Amino acid sequence: MEKNYTIKDIAKLCQVGKSTVSRVLNHDPKVSETTRQKVQTIIDSVGFSPNRSAQAMRGAQEPVVGIIVSRLNSSGESQTLRAILTALYRQKITPIIVESQFDEKQVAHHLNLFKQRQVDSVIVFGFSPLSEDILQQWQGNMVVIARYFKEISCVYYDDQGAINALMDKFYTQGYRHIGYLGIHDQDETTGRLRTQSYLDFCHRHQLKPNFALTELDIEAGYQHSAQLAQPLDAVLCATTSLAVGMVKYLQEHQSMRPLAYIGQNPLLEHFVPNLINLDFGYEQAGNWAVELLLAQIYGNKTVEQRLVSFHLS
Amino acid sequence: MEKNYTIKDIAKLCQVGKSTVSRVLNHDPKVSETTRQKVQTIIDSVGFSPNRSAQAMRGAQEPVVGIIVSRLNSSGESQTLRAILTALYRQKITPIIVESQFDEKQVAHHLNLFKQRQVDSVIVFGFSPLSEDILQQWQGNMVVIARYFKEISCVYYDDQGAINALMDKFYTQGYRHIGYLGIHDQDETTGRLRTQSYLDFCHRHQLKPNFALTELDIEAGYQHSAQLAQPLDAVLCATTSLAVGMVKYLQEHQSMRPLAYIGQNPLLEHFVPNLINLDFGYEQAGNWAVELLLAQIYGNKTVEQRLVSFHLS
Repeated sequence: MEKNYTIKDIAKLCQVGKSTVSRVLNHDPKVSETTRQKVQTIIDSVGFSPNRSAQAMRGAQEPVVGIIVSRLNSSGESQTLRAILTALYRQKITPIIVESQFDEKQVAHHLNLFKQRQVDSVIVFGFSPLSEDILQQWQGNMVVIARYFKEISCVYYDDQGAINALMDKFYTQGYRHIGYLGIHDQDETTGRLRTQSYLDFCHRHQLKPNFALTELDIEAGYQHSAQLAQPLDAVLCATTSLAVGMVKYLQEHQSMRPLAYIGQNPLLEHFVPNLINLDFGYEQAGNWAVELLLAQIYGNKTVEQRLVSFHLS
Repeated sequence: MEKNYTIKDIAKLCQVGKSTVSRVLNHDPKVSETTRQKVQTIIDSVGFSPNRSAQAMRGAQEPVVGIIVSRLNSSGESQTLRAILTALYRQKITPIIVESQFDEKQVAHHLNLFKQRQVDSVIVFGFSPLSEDILQQWQGNMVVIARYFKEISCVYYDDQGAINALMDKFYTQGYRHIGYLGIHDQDETTGRLRTQSYLDFCHRHQLKPNFALTELDIEAGYQHSAQLAQPLDAVLCATTSLAVGMVKYLQEHQSMRPLAYIGQNPLLEHFVPNLINLDFGYEQAGNWAVELLLAQIYGNKTVEQRLVSFHLS
């Protein structure tokens, strides 16, 4: 009968740490080419499969990862989720998905459900308010996306840097009346943090703030576009959906202006030329979330925080 | 202590069938107003909650419905899924979602997982090839969407009627050179059935068929748009994503034409005026799928097929 090798066995055979083996399995570029080749050779020669190993870890049951998204049709989350699913499929791990609907009670409910149904690792898309308390007992079996937590592995975004970069682009193009359409302060990151970064930029450059805050959807963006005061040289939107609403409003009023936003929407960018936007790093966040989770499952790294970089397009 | 009423108890008290009670709980319009009031009065007076009843049925465990989507970012499926989730949340039933990626083996795998993890009702988004055989043992605990099966409850679409309606619209507008961009025949409904309906229409009206078949995504639609021959008065696309690819191609070549497609895409419709499209009934399908599933869980109706009607916009 074939021996069921574990990550530990492979690590011992290769004389490296467990986390190095898991990095190789996960195609982590941080592993040196020499190490990668050494580990891969051993893996191939003994016919090791991380899936079989993980199954062994759990008795007969296969590895299942629970994913708590906040809402399935959010454009940014969809990109991150796609990256997560692709990475998990590659590892032969089955993802099951539930929706929190931005409700902390639902997260608690789903975590309880996962515990009952033998789901032992979880990726949670953060939102506000979501407190670290209810996640605490999952430390070492959980990665949070889009919120920073001290005691739980997380992958979080550079909201401040992204707003600064887009404002700076407008500023260096000579615009001084830059409006901002954002999200309510109840939302900690997409809301408060982005608005504050806009206000800080205005303060540093002695610009007069001109902004409106609303909900995270196209229709709300459209409805609140009219609230920005004149004069208005250019508009920065906190999210893709607000940008869609704003474009609709400006086009209907024949008053299109230079427009920037955080996120990507190929259809919008096809129909409206010269939009300024940025890749916020959604896909990178998904890949990193799986990396951190695998390091928990197969390695010994239980808590790590990573800041995702954005890229101006 | 409060008695845990079951649907059966309520049915007996009201002197109606179990399925009538489940219809009332599910706000099914087919129940007469008199019956609805009678049943609702009893439900209210005994404080019956379908959720508590279902929990009782399963011992302590809450009801969980597994949903097997084919791919999360498909536009039509997203609309159906949203309707399903909303309806299940209303019933305090927890949905968990997995992706088949159009792979029958994955469906079998997920069904096995659901059985292991005490998920006892399933909604499956059909695709091709997906045979009735692997679903058979779930009869009475399953609803299939977008495929017709004899022995399993299903909600299926009117592909033929929709293609006919759109072709007829072009035809009555005087167009005689109508091109068609569709999906490969390996896909039974979105592919073969829609293409066949186009060809049948052409045959009946002595039009010369002019079509290209490709994969179900925007880029594929864009790449294959050039394959339609001239003369070309108008174009019918089998899906929204193909329509997006086709619009991109026609606009880039400054040769925009009357364009029709099955499905809806608010952003596309905002930017391109005069598109002809139809509501294929995605939302209705989601609502009906939950109705049929509730009739299985709470009632005694195990197999029912429903054809969803489309609506020209």
